[in-house]
Amino acid sequence: MNKTTFSYRQLEIFTKEIFLKIGCSEAESKTATDVLLSADLRGIDSHGIARLTGYVRLWENKRVNANPQIKITHETPSTAVIDGDAGLGLVVAPNAMKVAIAKARNVGTGWVSVGNSNHFGIAGYHAMMALEEDMIGIAMTNASALVAPTFSVERMLGTNPIAIAIPAGKQPAFVMDMATTTAANGKLELLQRENKDAPVGWIQDKYGENSQNAAELKDNGALLPLGSDREHGSHKGYALGSVVDIFSAVLSGGSYGPWAPPFPAYVPMPENMPGKGLGHFFGAMRIDAFRKADEFKEHMDNWITRFRNASPKNKNQHVLIPGDPERETEAIRRKEGIPLFPSVIEDLRILAEKLHISTHPF
Amino acid sequence: MNKTTFSYRQLEIFTKEIFLKIGCSEAESKTATDVLLSADLRGIDSHGIARLTGYVRLWENKRVNANPQIKITHETPSTAVIDGDAGLGLVVAPNAMKVAIAKARNVGTGWVSVGNSNHFGIAGYHAMMALEEDMIGIAMTNASALVAPTFSVERMLGTNPIAIAIPAGKQPAFVMDMATTTAANGKLELLQRENKDAPVGWIQDKYGENSQNAAELKDNGALLPLGSDREHGSHKGYALGSVVDIFSAVLSGGSYGPWAPPFPAYVPMPENMPGKGLGHFFGAMRIDAFRKADEFKEHMDNWITRFRNASPKNKNQHVLIPGDPERETEAIRRKEGIPLFPSVIEDLRILAEKLHISTHPF
Repeated sequence: MNKTTFSYRQLEIFTKEIFLKIGCSEAESKTATDVLLSADLRGIDSHGIARLTGYVRLWENKRVNANPQIKITHETPSTAVIDGDAGLGLVVAPNAMKVAIAKARNVGTGWVSVGNSNHFGIAGYHAMMALEEDMIGIAMTNASALVAPTFSVERMLGTNPIAIAIPAGKQPAFVMDMATTTAANGKLELLQRENKDAPVGWIQDKYGENSQNAAELKDNGALLPLGSDREHGSHKGYALGSVVDIFSAVLSGGSYGPWAPPFPAYVPMPENMPGKGLGHFFGAMRIDAFRKADEFKEHMDNWITRFRNASPKNKNQHVLIPGDPERETEAIRRKEGIPLFPSVIEDLRILAEKLHISTHPF
Repeated sequence: MNKTTFSYRQLEIFTKEIFLKIGCSEAESKTATDVLLSADLRGIDSHGIARLTGYVRLWENKRVNANPQIKITHETPSTAVIDGDAGLGLVVAPNAMKVAIAKARNVGTGWVSVGNSNHFGIAGYHAMMALEEDMIGIAMTNASALVAPTFSVERMLGTNPIAIAIPAGKQPAFVMDMATTTAANGKLELLQRENKDAPVGWIQDKYGENSQNAAELKDNGALLPLGSDREHGSHKGYALGSVVDIFSAVLSGGSYGPWAPPFPAYVPMPENMPGKGLGHFFGAMRIDAFRKADEFKEHMDNWITRFRNASPKNKNQHVLIPGDPERETEAIRRKEGIPLFPSVIEDLRILAEKLHISTHPF
C-alpha cells in the first residue's frame, strides 16, 4: 500500500486543532499533540495520529473528559497518587511525571501512581521527560486485556508497556520502551494491513493453540506474554505485565486486569469494575541522589560504547542500544516527514469534516 | 541420579558452622545461612547450599571479606549508595534492604544501590523482606557475563535477576523472582547433570547459532536474553538485563557488563574493571504511601483470585500466581527435607574435612 508523507508541522497543526475542538485548553492541546505525535516521530505508528479518531470517539462517548481536574489525592515526600478525572492520558501522564520529577528534586526520587485516566500514548515520551533533569525516568501503564497468562486461554492483561530512560554524557540516552508481550499489538495491526502471517509465538487462538493469523484477536485469540510459551519463559512476561498492572492500577485505584477499560469506544465497558479508568505508574530518580552526575554519565558512555562494540554475529548488524532505532527514525522523519497509510489519511479526512475543520492536508 | 534428603535444620547447622569457620560473626553467619538456604527451601537449587563451596573458594582467594565494614557512602532522604567492602552478598544485601525499608518508613519509598559486593543468593529473599512491613520489595543484581545481547556472539551481561514482592491480604503474596534470560543458568546446570539437551531458544554457540548442548557455555556459547531471538523479543530481555546492570553497578560504582567479577574463584578477574565488585539494587515502597494498606490488600486478593481462576487451557493446569511454585516447594521441603545430588553431598563432605568440621551429616 502506498503511504503519503506529511511534515511534522502539518500533523502538529491539525492534531492540535482537533484537541482544541473537543474542548481541551490551549496548553493541554499542545501537550496532547506533543505526546501523541512523538509516537509517529519515533516510528511507533500504532500509537500516534492513527489513534486520533479513537481518542475523539472516546470523548464523544463521554469516556474522556476534555477539561479534567487532575488532582493529587494522597502523598508523601517521595510518592503521590493522582486522580486523572477521566482526562486524556496524553495530558494526565506528563502532569503526573512532573510531580514525580518535583519529588525527586526534593528527596532524591519520586513515584506516582495514577488512576481514572485514559491511554497515554507511548510510555517512552513520559520516561524521557526525566532526562533533561539528569534523572532516570520510568513510565508504565495498564491497558485493556489482550494477553493470556501462561496456561490460560483468557485475556487478562494489556500489553502493559514499561519505559526506562537513563541519561548518558556524549552518547545518546539509553531508552527502553517495550510492551511486556512478545510483540506489541501495533505489529499485528501492521501485518493485518499488509495481509501477512504472524510468526509462531506471538499469538494463540481461543483454544490456546499457536496461531499465525494476525487477525486472531478478533476471534477471541490472545497475544502472548514475552517469552511466548512456558518453556521459553512466558511466565516471566506474564509476571512483568502483572507488576505493571498492579503498580499502575491496584496502587492507584484504577481498574485492573480484565476490567481495564477498552480503547475502542464501541466496546462496552467491563461489568463490575473494581476501580476507575486506566492506571499509570511513573518514577524519577535523580542521578546525583546516588552518584555525581558527571561521573555516572562518563560510565554510561563507557557502558554504551562497550555494548555497541560487542562482537556482532553478522558484520553488517552491530549491537543496538535500547532507543537507537527510535532515535534514528525520529531524525529521518523530522527531515523527510511522516508516512501515513491511505486508511489512516481517510480516517483523518472524515474526522476533519465531522469537526468542521476547513483547512487540512488530507 | 539418586538424591539424598536432609532436614533444613541439618543444613542450617552445617552452613552456619562454615560461615563461622571462615571468620564471619555469629550474626552474619546466621544471616548468610538464612539467605543461602532460602534458595534450597524455595526449589532454586542452583543458588543454595550447592554454592557453599564456591563462596568459600572466593574467600580463600581473598575475593570475599568475611568481616566487611559495610557503609553508606552517599544518601538522600529516599536513596543511598552502599559500599559492601567486598563482603558476602548474602550479608551485604539484607543490610542494604534494611536501609531501603527504613527510608521508605520515613519518606514513602527507599532505593539503595550497592557496589563492591559479591553474589547475594536469590533475589526473592531480599525483596520479600519488605512484605512484613506492608511494603512492596524490589531486588536485583548484576552477575558475571554469560548472556549475549541481541545480534551479538559476545557475553556481555549476567543472568541479572529481578525480584518484586507485593503483599496481599488473605492470599499469599505475589512474588516474582526471575532471571532476565529465557532460562536461568541453574536450569542448564541441571540438564548437564542429567545429560539432557536444552530446548532450542535457551542458548547459542560461539557463532551465534542455536544450540541444544547444555554445556555450550564451556565452549564460549552464551545464554539468550528473555525472548530468545529478535523476532520473539530478545531485545526486550536484553534491555531488561541492561537496566539491572546499570541500576546495580553503574549507579553504585560496581563493575558492570563484561567486567562483572566471576563467581568461580579459578576464573581470573576481568582486566581494566571500571568499578568494584558486583552491584545490587533494592527498593521498598510503603503501600500506605499510595493507598490504605487494607484497601490495597483487599484488591490484591481480588486480583490474585481472578487470575487464579482465569480459564485454563487444560483443566489440569490452572493459572499460577508468581511465587506459587516456590511457596509450594518450601512447604514440602520444610516438612520432608531438602534433596541434594550426590555430587553436591561429596563437595560438602570435602569442604567439611578441609575446614575441620568433625560432626556433619554428609
